[in-house]
Amino acid sequence: MSTSRLEAFSDGVLAIIITIMVLELKVPEEPTLHALREATSTGLLTYLLSFVYIGIYWSNHHHLFQLVDDVDGSILWANLHLLFWLSLYPFTTAWLDESDLARTPTVIYGVNLLAAAIAYYLLQLRILRVPGSGARVQEAMGSNMKGKLSPLLYLTGIALAFVEPLLALVPYVAVALMWLVPDRRVERFLEQERAAGGHGHVQGDQ
Amino acid sequence: MSTSRLEAFSDGVLAIIITIMVLELKVPEEPTLHALREATSTGLLTYLLSFVYIGIYWSNHHHLFQLVDDVDGSILWANLHLLFWLSLYPFTTAWLDESDLARTPTVIYGVNLLAAAIAYYLLQLRILRVPGSGARVQEAMGSNMKGKLSPLLYLTGIALAFVEPLLALVPYVAVALMWLVPDRRVERFLEQERAAGGHGHVQGDQ
Amino acid sequence: MSTSRLEAFSDGVLAIIITIMVLELKVPEEPTLHALREATSTGLLTYLLSFVYIGIYWSNHHHLFQLVDDVDGSILWANLHLLFWLSLYPFTTAWLDESDLARTPTVIYGVNLLAAAIAYYLLQLRILRVPGSGARVQEAMGSNMKGKLSPLLYLTGIALAFVEPLLALVPYVAVALMWLVPDRRVERFLEQERAAGGHGHVQGDQ
Amino acid sequence: MSTSRLEAFSDGVLAIIITIMVLELKVPEEPTLHALREATSTGLLTYLLSFVYIGIYWSNHHHLFQLVDDVDGSILWANLHLLFWLSLYPFTTAWLDESDLARTPTVIYGVNLLAAAIAYYLLQLRILRVPGSGARVQEAMGSNMKGKLSPLLYLTGIALAFVEPLLALVPYVAVALMWLVPDRRVERFLEQERAAGGHGHVQGDQ
Repeated sequence: MSTSRLEAFSDGVLAIIITIMVLELKVPEEPTLHALREATSTGLLTYLLSFVYIGIYWSNHHHLFQLVDDVDGSILWANLHLLFWLSLYPFTTAWLDESDLARTPTVIYGVNLLAAAIAYYLLQLRILRVPGSGARVQEAMGSNMKGKLSPLLYLTGIALAFVEPLLALVPYVAVALMWLVPDRRVERFLEQERAAGGHGHVQGDQ
Repeated sequence: MSTSRLEAFSDGVLAIIITIMVLELKVPEEPTLHALREATSTGLLTYLLSFVYIGIYWSNHHHLFQLVDDVDGSILWANLHLLFWLSLYPFTTAWLDESDLARTPTVIYGVNLLAAAIAYYLLQLRILRVPGSGARVQEAMGSNMKGKLSPLLYLTGIALAFVEPLLALVPYVAVALMWLVPDRRVERFLEQERAAGGHGHVQGDQ
Repeated sequence: MSTSRLEAFSDGVLAIIITIMVLELKVPEEPTLHALREATSTGLLTYLLSFVYIGIYWSNHHHLFQLVDDVDGSILWANLHLLFWLSLYPFTTAWLDESDLARTPTVIYGVNLLAAAIAYYLLQLRILRVPGSGARVQEAMGSNMKGKLSPLLYLTGIALAFVEPLLALVPYVAVALMWLVPDRRVERFLEQERAAGGHGHVQGDQ
Repeated sequence: MSTSRLEAFSDGVLAIIITIMVLELKVPEEPTLHALREATSTGLLTYLLSFVYIGIYWSNHHHLFQLVDDVDGSILWANLHLLFWLSLYPFTTAWLDESDLARTPTVIYGVNLLAAAIAYYLLQLRILRVPGSGARVQEAMGSNMKGKLSPLLYLTGIALAFVEPLLALVPYVAVALMWLVPDRRVERFLEQERAAGGHGHVQGDQ
């Protein structure tokens, strides 16, 4: 079974998640800059943060499935499991925003981030067990430092939220920044493979 | 006419259905764990259930159309008929949730599940009549036990709802679990066909 | 420029239009069959009608662009013009529903249907002027009776709405039924072309 | 890395943005033409304007990526940066509409238009640095008059809004009209390239 329809469906879900979050931004009641600040003070910030997270998942998902040739039922469901947690982002983001970064919503937001990170990890584990694709993912990903660091940072954020909710944003934002730094592993791997006359994804025109 | 645009459109509709259901989750008014439990006690459960159902339909749809080469107008409309009933899931799910699993909404939810199952069955019937694809679907699906059992379980759930709404969830959840168990029929069939040098979907690179 | 991205974008917009209309269905306030009837008496009917219309446009759009090889800027905009009028369906449908089929909303709904039909007609005209594709569309579509009859029926409906809004639904529903009857023109045309060793879309595997 | 998934994701996001804006149109409370005018006086106008803008971005995006063969991480993020600003259109459009074109919302709408134009410009800059694709974009785009004029017109609009909000609409509408005029640069370039036996995108069937 090819990966194209799984990718198309995931793209659709991620595109919707990233876009409906804007519906949570409340239109200011007065036509003044002050009302805009009131209405979007935390809203724009949390929207931007969740936008970047979904963008990161889309980008990583995109890279991951470039290394996969076939998907079976277990990968389908590991993928849906990831999409489930990501689909809760608009909900937990809206609560975080409306509560003006209160303690419990900040913890729950972190738990949601953590659950999605674990779901992504499980998806990767499933793919590693696929003959062929697994070895390529293993080789391309290497030690996968970022993937292992992210859950730890989320846990730190959740712990910090109990001290002071605003502090929790530090590790949350750190994860986003860490992933925003371009990561050329998969691209480099595919280039090397191509140069070595490897796997068969080569579609050069020279 | 190729199946790709029908699949793309269906993917789009299913992706939207699965994602807008989260808009039904009401953001808690207080920033407390208690308010979260209040706001999402049945909401998260019913959201998860409907999410899994849509996931199952997407997965089955995906498998079914792998066996189909051409679609005609009647298949287009059988497919839209299925999408119509699935598009009502967010509505019946929201009612089920807001009523805290009262009798009538539980029955109506079951009727919605049943109608979608019948629509899927009619879609399959239409495809079975297509020369070529039909024979492949027939062979790959075999006796189609799950497809026949699901409507019966939905009917049982509807009947049980008249006794006690909570009981209806047992067969509803049972259907979801039954389909979650990996079903390798289509994949096995395609592998065998490929091994036998069969139909022409073979795109190996060796 | 290939048609695939135009089709993908149109599929996306149509998929969203067809799905967000369900958000207009108000969840009944009481968990009773009576409340459900109250809440959805006209809502389900108008939702179904608009669902079928969008389904028809999707299906016709799909057939039309099978005959087109290249799109230029003017076709892009003729297509966006069509999507604009279709994107208003959720709005005019919601008004029709909430007013319980009052006169003005019934007229406005008809005007929306008419505007979309005209936009589709203009799109077809643009395509007819494209060298190559135009001749194929001309040949495949023939006299295009349905396309010419639809605006007349919409106009009849608009006129009838001034007498009695309920009467307007007769021609509105008639258009939907007329298009639901399978139309094999494009499929037959493509088959003949293929048999004649024609255009080059042939992708048989024998 | 191929551009197809980036295009599919962008199509999805743009399709959703263009469609959810209709959710901002408030259904009139009375079934009268007067109530419709009240409810949609500025709403329809601003909806149409933002619809056209998104249509323009989609069309330009479509043309731009026809010239690009490979995308790297930096292009992914430059693209997401553009989508972020575009995703705020429904929000700023709704505010503009609900305030009946008051000063501050008109300025903020212009700032949003400007930010998206800058994001598009940065995306183009990134692509110009890609070996191969960059040279083609450079050659196809030429001096890119429209691209340079648009931010200036947006700035003019923002300045005029401080004098009289309605005046600001003149340059805003002018940008839309300027881009609506068919722009055959990319198409002409691809045709010439094809005629010259150039790049390898040639897929003629003669």
